[in-house]
Amino acid sequence: MSVTYPKGFRTNGVSAGLRRNGNPDLALIVNDGPLQAAAGVLTSNRVFAAPVAWCREVLAGGTAHAVVVNSACANACTGPAGLADAKAEAALVAELEGCPQGEVLVSSTGIIGQRLEMDKMTAGIRAAHAGLATGADADDVASRSIMTTDTHPKTTAQEFDGARFGGIAKGAGMLAPQLATMLVFITTDAVVESADLQKALAPAADVTFSRVDSDACMSTNDTVIVLASGASGVTLSPERLQEALTAVSADLARQLVGDAEGSHHDVLVQVNRASSTQAAVAVAREVSRSNLVKTAIAGNDPNWGRILSAVGCVPASVAPFDPDQVDVRLNGVTICRGGMIGEDRSLVDMTGREVHIEIDLAAGDASGHIWTNDLTHEYVEENSAYTS
Amino acid sequence: MSVTYPKGFRTNGVSAGLRRNGNPDLALIVNDGPLQAAAGVLTSNRVFAAPVAWCREVLAGGTAHAVVVNSACANACTGPAGLADAKAEAALVAELEGCPQGEVLVSSTGIIGQRLEMDKMTAGIRAAHAGLATGADADDVASRSIMTTDTHPKTTAQEFDGARFGGIAKGAGMLAPQLATMLVFITTDAVVESADLQKALAPAADVTFSRVDSDACMSTNDTVIVLASGASGVTLSPERLQEALTAVSADLARQLVGDAEGSHHDVLVQVNRASSTQAAVAVAREVSRSNLVKTAIAGNDPNWGRILSAVGCVPASVAPFDPDQVDVRLNGVTICRGGMIGEDRSLVDMTGREVHIEIDLAAGDASGHIWTNDLTHEYVEENSAYTS
Repeated sequence: MSVTYPKGFRTNGVSAGLRRNGNPDLALIVNDGPLQAAAGVLTSNRVFAAPVAWCREVLAGGTAHAVVVNSACANACTGPAGLADAKAEAALVAELEGCPQGEVLVSSTGIIGQRLEMDKMTAGIRAAHAGLATGADADDVASRSIMTTDTHPKTTAQEFDGARFGGIAKGAGMLAPQLATMLVFITTDAVVESADLQKALAPAADVTFSRVDSDACMSTNDTVIVLASGASGVTLSPERLQEALTAVSADLARQLVGDAEGSHHDVLVQVNRASSTQAAVAVAREVSRSNLVKTAIAGNDPNWGRILSAVGCVPASVAPFDPDQVDVRLNGVTICRGGMIGEDRSLVDMTGREVHIEIDLAAGDASGHIWTNDLTHEYVEENSAYTS
Repeated sequence: MSVTYPKGFRTNGVSAGLRRNGNPDLALIVNDGPLQAAAGVLTSNRVFAAPVAWCREVLAGGTAHAVVVNSACANACTGPAGLADAKAEAALVAELEGCPQGEVLVSSTGIIGQRLEMDKMTAGIRAAHAGLATGADADDVASRSIMTTDTHPKTTAQEFDGARFGGIAKGAGMLAPQLATMLVFITTDAVVESADLQKALAPAADVTFSRVDSDACMSTNDTVIVLASGASGVTLSPERLQEALTAVSADLARQLVGDAEGSHHDVLVQVNRASSTQAAVAVAREVSRSNLVKTAIAGNDPNWGRILSAVGCVPASVAPFDPDQVDVRLNGVTICRGGMIGEDRSLVDMTGREVHIEIDLAAGDASGHIWTNDLTHEYVEENSAYTS
């Protein structure tokens, strides 16, 4: 179960014919209420797709009845015509559901710079709407409809004090700093207003989706949407709601890292004893973006010199620390101590899927992390062969 | 010819036994004067190698009689013992040349976090010194002694108004923003004081070596050194000197890009009509660092969507422009016009070694460029298999 695990939601996914391989490529999620609260975090790329522009309008209105999502085509860099296409999708769902067009969210992922095939979209939306349902099968096909290069769907279902949360996500590549073609749709039957939902979502996304940096590339279409139906009758405290959304987001974010394009390792870069959280995250991000670190990990090489070299690229104004005080621990072995050679690198076991890099800056009490992946032949293969 | 093309210099290279394959790995360049002026641009990485620390001291003194360079070991992250090793190298050259220790520059490239084998260094320095010479053979072995993963030496020899300039460079990988394990040694017989040489070198390096960004990784050992002997008796105007150093640096920088690890394409990212040079370079750098752009180019895919998506990641505060006004030209074909689909992408010929990406921001009169490379299987192979 995922998006219909909370009460008040129906979903479906169909093959609209957008993907050449005939796999499901269009999903619809409908919120039957009683509430239709919504919140979202969208890409901060200045080049953003038409559906992102439309979502901003809908979210500003504070009410969302449904979200329609397609894969295979990002509807990005398509100009006014692309925006008209996104609005036409919303209008069709609105007509079918009997709600205002301005209450239908639209989301797309896939190739940039191509128009949507609107005849296929129209037929697909009608078919998806006709089969809206609750339960495992509906959730499963919805989660598979939003996939691009993902090798499997990502889902979650969790309960907090009687309120349920469900979610689906896609994004095997382009997971990035401020999110990146990552689409995430979370549902909940908690009772909450849109403004409070947004207040809880933003910090939750900040410590989960924004701490995933697979290849440092930020997409034009990144979208995290939360829909709340209120159908459980349960109201969570603001703190508890944020806790719940953080847990749900962390679960999905971790699954996204685990399926990043061509990766062999999931890499946690944990920075401790930093002067601030911002400094810790900046150092973690610099390390997570170093192609030399990432290729070393792909080769199971405990190359702390490359890690330390990346750490040294962070300006002192961003992260004050003394390079001669920095320790680096790799899978528990302190291979670099005080900026110099530490324990024997042959002690480091790099064979597991997870690699833990711990950097101790000896500069304060704050900490922060980034999840990233190694850089492999398969990453190059997928991204040199696949037009997106 | 290269470093001994200008009058007043001798050089040599030997196999000190640092490289396992027995290739030359130690070079010595001596300035016989009459002047011993020197200038340098060194890594801005906060984690910098012992020889970089020592070079800063020597350059502050304003006089450099010689430079000794080794490959195979970076002498980085080696603490006080590593600094003592660098000073011992300088002391030995000083003893052999009869000059102060503080007038001998030291440079290293290779594996980080390992001590130099000083017995081999000592024997190598003595052997190199015994064979110091001028001419093509001496220049050739010196240029090969500083190579690591380079597939061929990089050299230049140019004359400006009777003053000669020569140079050797290495760095098939880690070419980066503020330089990166790139070592460059330039000689000239122009008459110039150290302070004026530095004034000419800094802007020359800024528009050449600092505009090469192969993999965005900045090294602990980056070094550009210029030695001036004054032996020609020719004094160039400050403008002409800067022009000469820029030409010499551009020649070497272009050769470095052409031999970047595993690359199949040399990519010029040229940004035009920007609000400032800084804005143009920031946009060019963002594009040049996108692994998605770089893998697309490796696949000969004219993927303008990924280019535009990278452009959009530059904050408006850094580079003001309207994404809907941006044109992207790839090898002369305007495949993106006004942020949307332009000419047919099938018109773009990506088969040549050079790829030209031109981005028109329609935001001003400034321009700037970055040279980068594609991201290939061979890059991953070299960097996952080779410990550096």
